[in-house]
Amino acid sequence: MPTPVTSRITCPRLAGRTATAEEAAALIRPGDNVGISGFTGAGYPKAVPSALAARMHAAREAGEEFRVGLWSGASTAPEADGVLAEAHGISKRLPYNSDPTLRREINAGEVEYVDAHLSHSAQHMWFGFYGHLDVAVVEVAAVLPNGLLVPSSSVGNNKTWLDQADKVILEVNHWQPRDLEGFHDVYYGTRLPPFRAPLQLTHPMQRIGDPYLRVDPDKVVAVVETDAPDRNSPLSVPGDDDRAMAEHLVDFLRHEVRAGRMPATLLPLQSGVGNVANAVMAGLADSEFENLTSFTEVIQDGLLDLLDSGTLTGVSATSFGLSPTGVQRFMSDVGAYKGRILLRSEEISNHPELVRRLGVIAINGMIEADVYGNVNSTHVMGSSIMNGIGGSGDFARNAYLNFFVSPSTAKGGAISSIVPFASHVDHTEHDVHVLVTEQGLADLRGLSPSARADVVIERCAHPDFRDQLRDYVGRARRERPTARHTPHLLDEALSWHQRYLDTGSMLDTGSMLDGGSLLEGGRA
Amino acid sequence: MPTPVTSRITCPRLAGRTATAEEAAALIRPGDNVGISGFTGAGYPKAVPSALAARMHAAREAGEEFRVGLWSGASTAPEADGVLAEAHGISKRLPYNSDPTLRREINAGEVEYVDAHLSHSAQHMWFGFYGHLDVAVVEVAAVLPNGLLVPSSSVGNNKTWLDQADKVILEVNHWQPRDLEGFHDVYYGTRLPPFRAPLQLTHPMQRIGDPYLRVDPDKVVAVVETDAPDRNSPLSVPGDDDRAMAEHLVDFLRHEVRAGRMPATLLPLQSGVGNVANAVMAGLADSEFENLTSFTEVIQDGLLDLLDSGTLTGVSATSFGLSPTGVQRFMSDVGAYKGRILLRSEEISNHPELVRRLGVIAINGMIEADVYGNVNSTHVMGSSIMNGIGGSGDFARNAYLNFFVSPSTAKGGAISSIVPFASHVDHTEHDVHVLVTEQGLADLRGLSPSARADVVIERCAHPDFRDQLRDYVGRARRERPTARHTPHLLDEALSWHQRYLDTGSMLDTGSMLDGGSLLEGGRA
Repeated sequence: MPTPVTSRITCPRLAGRTATAEEAAALIRPGDNVGISGFTGAGYPKAVPSALAARMHAAREAGEEFRVGLWSGASTAPEADGVLAEAHGISKRLPYNSDPTLRREINAGEVEYVDAHLSHSAQHMWFGFYGHLDVAVVEVAAVLPNGLLVPSSSVGNNKTWLDQADKVILEVNHWQPRDLEGFHDVYYGTRLPPFRAPLQLTHPMQRIGDPYLRVDPDKVVAVVETDAPDRNSPLSVPGDDDRAMAEHLVDFLRHEVRAGRMPATLLPLQSGVGNVANAVMAGLADSEFENLTSFTEVIQDGLLDLLDSGTLTGVSATSFGLSPTGVQRFMSDVGAYKGRILLRSEEISNHPELVRRLGVIAINGMIEADVYGNVNSTHVMGSSIMNGIGGSGDFARNAYLNFFVSPSTAKGGAISSIVPFASHVDHTEHDVHVLVTEQGLADLRGLSPSARADVVIERCAHPDFRDQLRDYVGRARRERPTARHTPHLLDEALSWHQRYLDTGSMLDTGSMLDGGSLLEGGRA
Repeated sequence: MPTPVTSRITCPRLAGRTATAEEAAALIRPGDNVGISGFTGAGYPKAVPSALAARMHAAREAGEEFRVGLWSGASTAPEADGVLAEAHGISKRLPYNSDPTLRREINAGEVEYVDAHLSHSAQHMWFGFYGHLDVAVVEVAAVLPNGLLVPSSSVGNNKTWLDQADKVILEVNHWQPRDLEGFHDVYYGTRLPPFRAPLQLTHPMQRIGDPYLRVDPDKVVAVVETDAPDRNSPLSVPGDDDRAMAEHLVDFLRHEVRAGRMPATLLPLQSGVGNVANAVMAGLADSEFENLTSFTEVIQDGLLDLLDSGTLTGVSATSFGLSPTGVQRFMSDVGAYKGRILLRSEEISNHPELVRRLGVIAINGMIEADVYGNVNSTHVMGSSIMNGIGGSGDFARNAYLNFFVSPSTAKGGAISSIVPFASHVDHTEHDVHVLVTEQGLADLRGLSPSARADVVIERCAHPDFRDQLRDYVGRARRERPTARHTPHLLDEALSWHQRYLDTGSMLDTGSMLDGGSLLEGGRA
């Protein structure tokens, strides 16, 4: 008797492969490379990772090693990265992670983490740089009668995992709106060099692909039905600092429009994930700006607000990243957003070719910046990974204009986000246009490193750290008079970070500062 | 009586503007921003800079300040950057410099230097990020009857300077072959966002532009005739180290072809300037590889050899950078190279869109790399600029595969090119695929930072420094057991550079090394 099709799996052939999560997980072997769906806690598999983790726990108790290489779109959720990390089941992870358990294991040296530009992750897999992909585990919203897949709330690297994996496990999630059909644009024109062609996209909302993902049905070894929500982290209320940073940034956009360096409708906005991004969107909602567009990675609540108010005409992304109330809002009127939201593969949402062509305005958070404009987005005190570079490099390098944003201090004032020397560099001095803290905004365009230092200290550093920074730069200029392009005292350059590790604060309370003489010593 | 046209200036209107270099230089005012032609010592103005420098010297003697902002394609020559630097006449310089006098002034803090990605320099000028361009001084090979300009031995940013400057001074250099006509492809389809369109180029040798530069004749204030050679630095003979590095690299390309990760004709080659690049080209000439192409910045002698032997079918670049014998060879048979050499604007030769689409193999030199794969291409001991990032970031970031190449030591063994912590980062860990020294080659693809360290130390570091490096990484892993993603001891990270400044050597002769226990301390 043929297996009956269900409401979400209307392809008879794939309906015949329905299985439990446990049955599906049993098809994954120790040592496999596993490509999972998921981006910013949306569209990740909800059931198979837990079933796989259970097998890993069992293996561990039996004294056997059961670990896999885990590749994703970007961050997932406790039910995916979290459970597998708890089971100590991940040997290598790429290209992005934000799970705290997994982060701890990476920083303990137990898990190899390859922190890659998101626009590179799919192509590097195709190039063969990461090795062979054994299994794909991909959440979808539905399977059509002809076997085409309606993507879920993120697209990420799913096209690549489905194309490249030997075996495919699908999770069909009934929680995802069936009406997601039509929200996606999956470009199937990618090729390997020397056969690549131009991407013929000239507007953020232009369709260049299909609304569906494709899969070779012969590779589908299991179809698991689920009914579970995305992570949907609640949004914390933006604080005074968030609002101050947003205000500096929106004011600066006004200034650029007035100076004739940007159209009144701005250029397509990209914003990283978090409170500042949402505060910036709120700032734009309260502004005179209209007819905006967005070419970004993630659709947060702030973008939904702008869509609702009509300030934003459309948003191209690769994923949702909504709060529970944001999800509710979207789900209650899905149809109203169709045509105004497009989800693409991350190789397209983050593509250097498109980011540069469209002239994106890139707004991303940072951990710290040094006074010369080098930005650290990934490492705490030089060694511990926080999350990863994500798409910040794709967007910042190719943007028309980029902003890196952070409160000027962290840990209750013990850490300065503006330091003499970045303890890790993810965005170099050649790539950083504007720094923003709650203190102010430093426009670094067209300035030499040494000139930047003065602007960054006076505009962005917290007053508690300004004298220390002036002292460092001033002494560096004087003590190395033939090395003033990027003044540094190498035996002190990382001392702020070391002081934090030693004393819990970057504040130098022991020394006499020499802050008043930045320009002494013959500097022109 | 109308001014007679000359053999190289057949446009009557522009022939009427002929002037001496002194008359032309008199049209440049103190404080002007001046955009000059020139890239890698080719196609720079030969006469006007010296005349301008003479004015600057005179002003200085009269106690007046006469400095200009100087923008170029890339490096020029003693007759351009050199004479203006001698006259202390440059206030700000971008986007690349290799002149030793100017370098000294930058490092003394007398000149502001904005070290920009070459693919960004033209667009940032168009965006208004550098301010207003007052004068362009551009060398050409000829002026046609209709006023179109036959470009010289480099294109660089000439299109942008000619378009954007208020006033234009042309130098028509009779030394340049008149037959350069037809060697150029100047793309006039660039627009500002949001009006940009795809670049419809899918092969390195495809024409997408015009053979000529355009200029509004109303803006041309002077046409100066010259007859002077390009810089044409002699080539030093590649040494054993150069040949060893070339061998490692060519072997690795073979390995990639065998592994199915690259076609047998490879992919378009980009190589930086210098002996290693020439040695690599020589290595390819002696290899089984054929039907190669090149999509690069500069045509050095090594590429000419490959063209001559037929190994290379064609090369796209923005400039020549030949030795005197290379120039002789080219000049003696210019016609034979037509159709096999194309010179483009640097915004096109280095365009991220094209570098990624074509899948370029990028080969660039470096000053140092740290064991985690961060590369310093620009700074000596963290502070002094050497030359600049040039196109290395454009190519490396977007390449199919990139190599960073350097001898493992410098200054007779006193400096290790492999260090614990790069004293400046131009190419981040996210961007670096393969490191090459004469010791060997480290393939970093798909490795975590900590795993990279072991490979880099064992394959690339000089034996004299390996124990010191093992000691550093080993202790960093043990002493910060919860910070092992990128193991560092922050109070030692830059100590090698400080030791060099203090003692003239990075070698640590005073301490007991602890090199045998890299993997102790619980690292999985």
